[in-house]
Amino acid sequence: MGSFPVAAWLRAGRRALTAAPSTAYDYGDPCGRPELRTALAEYLGRARGVAADPSRIVVTSGYVQALALLVRAAARTVAMEDPGLPFHREVVRRAGGRVVPLPTDAHGARTDTLTLGLEDAPGSLRPDAVVVTSAHQYPTGVTLHPSRRHALTAWARESGGLVVEDDYDGEFRFDRQPVGALQGTAPDHVVYVGTASKTLGPALRVGWMVLPPHLVAPVAEEKLHTDFHTDALTQLTLAELIRTHGYDRHVRAARLRYRRRRDLLVAGLERAFGTGGPYGLEGVAAGLHALVTLPPGELTEARLQRRAARAGVAVGLLGHHWHDPGPHHRQGLVVGYGTPGEGRYAQALDALLRVLTQP
Amino acid sequence: MGSFPVAAWLRAGRRALTAAPSTAYDYGDPCGRPELRTALAEYLGRARGVAADPSRIVVTSGYVQALALLVRAAARTVAMEDPGLPFHREVVRRAGGRVVPLPTDAHGARTDTLTLGLEDAPGSLRPDAVVVTSAHQYPTGVTLHPSRRHALTAWARESGGLVVEDDYDGEFRFDRQPVGALQGTAPDHVVYVGTASKTLGPALRVGWMVLPPHLVAPVAEEKLHTDFHTDALTQLTLAELIRTHGYDRHVRAARLRYRRRRDLLVAGLERAFGTGGPYGLEGVAAGLHALVTLPPGELTEARLQRRAARAGVAVGLLGHHWHDPGPHHRQGLVVGYGTPGEGRYAQALDALLRVLTQP
Repeated sequence: MGSFPVAAWLRAGRRALTAAPSTAYDYGDPCGRPELRTALAEYLGRARGVAADPSRIVVTSGYVQALALLVRAAARTVAMEDPGLPFHREVVRRAGGRVVPLPTDAHGARTDTLTLGLEDAPGSLRPDAVVVTSAHQYPTGVTLHPSRRHALTAWARESGGLVVEDDYDGEFRFDRQPVGALQGTAPDHVVYVGTASKTLGPALRVGWMVLPPHLVAPVAEEKLHTDFHTDALTQLTLAELIRTHGYDRHVRAARLRYRRRRDLLVAGLERAFGTGGPYGLEGVAAGLHALVTLPPGELTEARLQRRAARAGVAVGLLGHHWHDPGPHHRQGLVVGYGTPGEGRYAQALDALLRVLTQP
Repeated sequence: MGSFPVAAWLRAGRRALTAAPSTAYDYGDPCGRPELRTALAEYLGRARGVAADPSRIVVTSGYVQALALLVRAAARTVAMEDPGLPFHREVVRRAGGRVVPLPTDAHGARTDTLTLGLEDAPGSLRPDAVVVTSAHQYPTGVTLHPSRRHALTAWARESGGLVVEDDYDGEFRFDRQPVGALQGTAPDHVVYVGTASKTLGPALRVGWMVLPPHLVAPVAEEKLHTDFHTDALTQLTLAELIRTHGYDRHVRAARLRYRRRRDLLVAGLERAFGTGGPYGLEGVAAGLHALVTLPPGELTEARLQRRAARAGVAVGLLGHHWHDPGPHHRQGLVVGYGTPGEGRYAQALDALLRVLTQP
């Protein structure tokens, strides 16, 4: 992301480690350091509307681990958004889970399929858990519609199923008030999962789960037998950064930076094509990526991606995200604006626009 | 352990993080940072006689994770020393493995049972992997006899099985030249596993595997889907600490401290009972713990442990380490001399000696 706050991190680390009791350097609680769980409870309540008592929090080594722990502790059949990240489907499978597709549309995850599925055609499966990127669907960028949010928590209450809320970029809402976490509306049925990967950087491998109380012990048991606990020094440093509001300052600065990049992308496309251009642009209200949809015709997303690669620009393909890939899906480019270094974004955007305007 | 080198760690962190390229803050290689793998290769070759090319190393989040990854990637039936740590047996089982006991005697793991087992009574199992604490068996403290080392690698070569060498306290040899790692004698059949838990502190959750080349890719795949990679900032800091010899300095200081504690324990028992006292003392040539064996008679290890607890001293029971617990085993106390803080060791030892001399 090119923007890890090195100096602030080192300062927080020095304060945290010199103040830490000597027991902090020994084996710790699989749920995580109390300092971090307390800091996260306050932050998540304030910033994301999460009902996050420290006793419900298990600190993990990032989102991948959180997902794997949940599958092992509580979920065998997992519904995951279609399209969605193939890597996360593979994480579920390797943890022993079975993945079923949850279709999405312009309102986000199609919650009707969860209940319809039960009486549906053979092969339909009743999921134990449903994973959603409700604030900003990956990769389409849709925000889950209020009626769908309601339907999802209603499904969880009625079926006893679990909703897993992957709030990977929830801090980055540009156009209006942040959409609060789904977890705040049904804390006994929703597992909230957040990480420092998009706010500080993925190198840290720190994430957090806010769990329904009955899942804390089974998840902590899995964590204990997976890696005992997450690096305590990193936890203490992050707790100090949150407690002293350095984390908030960094998130605010990152939000401005991403918003600027988003604005440049929107303006660039408009400049190139006018308002009714051949390409659609979706999912720009939030987050670190947008979806550029392709006009119907001969131009394929794969061909565009090859052109972009020749111009030195890396873009993702919507086509790589379907559970069941094929020509029947609509096509698009997943454009991440978090990745290029601060000095290289304008150049990368220009190159992308040249690729799109090329006949 | 009460001796984490806070100041040296913070200095190394400042140097490493300010020098790191911006890509170091993004997602990294599941095998670990190149800086750390290079530093470890040099260190492990020099300090432990490990044949450790950086390309064979996968950095993990501690020993527990290394063991779990190995089971998932390469071993279904795992022979583990009896007695041994019950926690590690449970780690293997949760990762999908089956545990079979590997008896030990005064020469360490009884390698004859590995081959005998094949033609043996029903129920005997051919293990895919054998886990040994060869430098200092946990909890008996025995060093694996040269003939057994040889038999173990011969078994691996002949059967195609894997030896997993848990070198948890290999740096702490007191009485003579260090016993080199088993891995150095058969690098294509032995997985060497080490950690920073006994040298720096378990709070860090950093370990390393040196693997036979054919296992690097499957283990890295499991690591990727478990937690992507280990905290890169911690890896960079540790690499800097090793590279600038701060790690060696700390290990040397720790070795002197543990040796002093070991000497105090030996001298204290001799003062209390003379040289032919009722209690035996085993496993004192190395490591962070010794085994105090009990005389035959009415006094049980459990009763001694309760007495010790009342005196404020925590000791482990040999009885907790058998695969199949029962009264037919010999009894003993596992005395760790790493745990009490530097100011409290003499006091804890006095309390323990009072407990042992109590009629």
